[in-house]
Amino acid sequence: MKTKKLINSGADAVDEMLQGVLSAHPNHLYAVEDMPRAIIAKNGPRRGKVGLVIGGGSGHEPTFLGFVGKGLADAAAIGNVFASPPPDPIIACAKAVDGGAGVLFMYGNYAGDVMNFDMAAEMLALDEIEARTVLTTDDVASAPPDQRHRRRGVAGNVFIFKAAGAACDLLYSFDDVERAARHANFRTYTMGVALSPCSLPQTLKPNFLIGEDEMEIGMGIHGEPGMAREPLKTANEVTDELMDSILREMKASRGDRVAVLVNSLGSTPMMELYIMMRRVKSRLDDAGLVIHTSLVGNYCTSLEMAGASVTVMHLDDELQRLIDHPCDCAMFTR
Amino acid sequence: MKTKKLINSGADAVDEMLQGVLSAHPNHLYAVEDMPRAIIAKNGPRRGKVGLVIGGGSGHEPTFLGFVGKGLADAAAIGNVFASPPPDPIIACAKAVDGGAGVLFMYGNYAGDVMNFDMAAEMLALDEIEARTVLTTDDVASAPPDQRHRRRGVAGNVFIFKAAGAACDLLYSFDDVERAARHANFRTYTMGVALSPCSLPQTLKPNFLIGEDEMEIGMGIHGEPGMAREPLKTANEVTDELMDSILREMKASRGDRVAVLVNSLGSTPMMELYIMMRRVKSRLDDAGLVIHTSLVGNYCTSLEMAGASVTVMHLDDELQRLIDHPCDCAMFTR
Repeated sequence: MKTKKLINSGADAVDEMLQGVLSAHPNHLYAVEDMPRAIIAKNGPRRGKVGLVIGGGSGHEPTFLGFVGKGLADAAAIGNVFASPPPDPIIACAKAVDGGAGVLFMYGNYAGDVMNFDMAAEMLALDEIEARTVLTTDDVASAPPDQRHRRRGVAGNVFIFKAAGAACDLLYSFDDVERAARHANFRTYTMGVALSPCSLPQTLKPNFLIGEDEMEIGMGIHGEPGMAREPLKTANEVTDELMDSILREMKASRGDRVAVLVNSLGSTPMMELYIMMRRVKSRLDDAGLVIHTSLVGNYCTSLEMAGASVTVMHLDDELQRLIDHPCDCAMFTR
Repeated sequence: MKTKKLINSGADAVDEMLQGVLSAHPNHLYAVEDMPRAIIAKNGPRRGKVGLVIGGGSGHEPTFLGFVGKGLADAAAIGNVFASPPPDPIIACAKAVDGGAGVLFMYGNYAGDVMNFDMAAEMLALDEIEARTVLTTDDVASAPPDQRHRRRGVAGNVFIFKAAGAACDLLYSFDDVERAARHANFRTYTMGVALSPCSLPQTLKPNFLIGEDEMEIGMGIHGEPGMAREPLKTANEVTDELMDSILREMKASRGDRVAVLVNSLGSTPMMELYIMMRRVKSRLDDAGLVIHTSLVGNYCTSLEMAGASVTVMHLDDELQRLIDHPCDCAMFTR
């Protein structure tokens, strides 16, 4: 059975989406001339500011392009569905946002993205633009704690990009932006659960199979295998599994503040996210942790996958200030 | 086959959702004491301002409670899934937001909601609080143009409530708020398409059946029958069907401005919404109409139903000013 999608053709889906995004948000975004996959903030980049370029595969909207705007990322390089962008749009993004203070690349830790962003950085060096990289590695399920550098980047991107984008907007030096971005990533933890697959516009076929009473804890946002496939449990039990992993790693002290994101992978409704949020709050209360800010909704999706993730960023004074910094993006305003 | 949901029990889903909402948004929202289904804006109601109370069944989140906040609605009365709230939380909302200038009830035109809000208005009259009602009737598919009063209210609520809430915040008189709200409703048109059903937390069973290659044009947000069941077409063809109906009714002149909402009914991803947005833009361009503002995303959902709706509000100077007025809600900031 094919998945029903409101598209014209699988091959055109990403480019037509981008045309729709520019139609809807002309005050926020534009594309580099002759480079439609390089999406730039109208009011972000400026002289003397570190330029922040994010990016990755399509299908995770509003990640990545929804977080391009004043106070957050300056540009997003857009790939095909669940596939890295090639170097060209990355280079175009970097050149468009370069303010002479350096360009920071931030994206989830996936082999294809690393290869393409690294190639772009090498090419930019020839033009005397220095690009550095901070990978996001917030997905607790994807590698053990002593191999944090091997972990994937998932919904925690929202907070990590937000902190880095604020540091750029506050005119931190290149060294300081890089330090703050690594710090933000280091203190951000995400755990997800998948209930049903999505299908790519090109195939209209499910990207994995799962039993009708099953869930998979820790599945990646492209359907990468998780930690355990189990019978579906109650929202409280599922949230406890996610929070147990997060709290165990975070090693927070009573009184510490956190930022929380309860994120839909696509088709899980807000009703279910808020039922999970209720349990997240209760677990944080039990641990003596204070919610400083929270987001609930579709922030980092996998097309129409059903499931959810919980992200906790362990705040300190600097991260709290960066998370509170205002931003004005097409799909995210604070 | 049962739908997989991240809930604890069907019977508790709405109340646990509300507890989660208050956990996530304590700076924006509170519930009336001993009345957890009466959700009030912390910074909205004030002396001399008309109080705006919206409401209806749960399952449409972020409609209704996501639009409670400064500059928009002052309160939302929350019903069970797809069911009207009873009079008690409506009365509690009205009393909490009454600033001595009158209370306006706004909600979609459904028999159950009309009965319960009308009962609440009668009880409030005994306490010398005057409550008036403006029903939203933006769903073009639900009755012919000469029976506009019989139409249902759907995603156009977002713009209609926004305009009315801005009028309240700008301290319009009660008469003027009511006039502006009716005017906003009168100039707002929505057409939707459903691809797959949702299921209620109590039953976990699909609320309607539809063939695996079919779509239903004009289906209501609770699965009410639409105008036509057809083979699934391309995004452009579907968008054209929706836009044909809207443009035919709107009778706009070249150069007129509009506000546009491309809304997911739940599980339709942003990629597909933006592909539709692209075609909406092209149709509006052809008609010589100017997009003043646009929203794309999950604004008025039917749990995890797949499908989308297009709303066009035909702006004039007053509506443009009201739509541009800032608002600060838990789930909607402009």
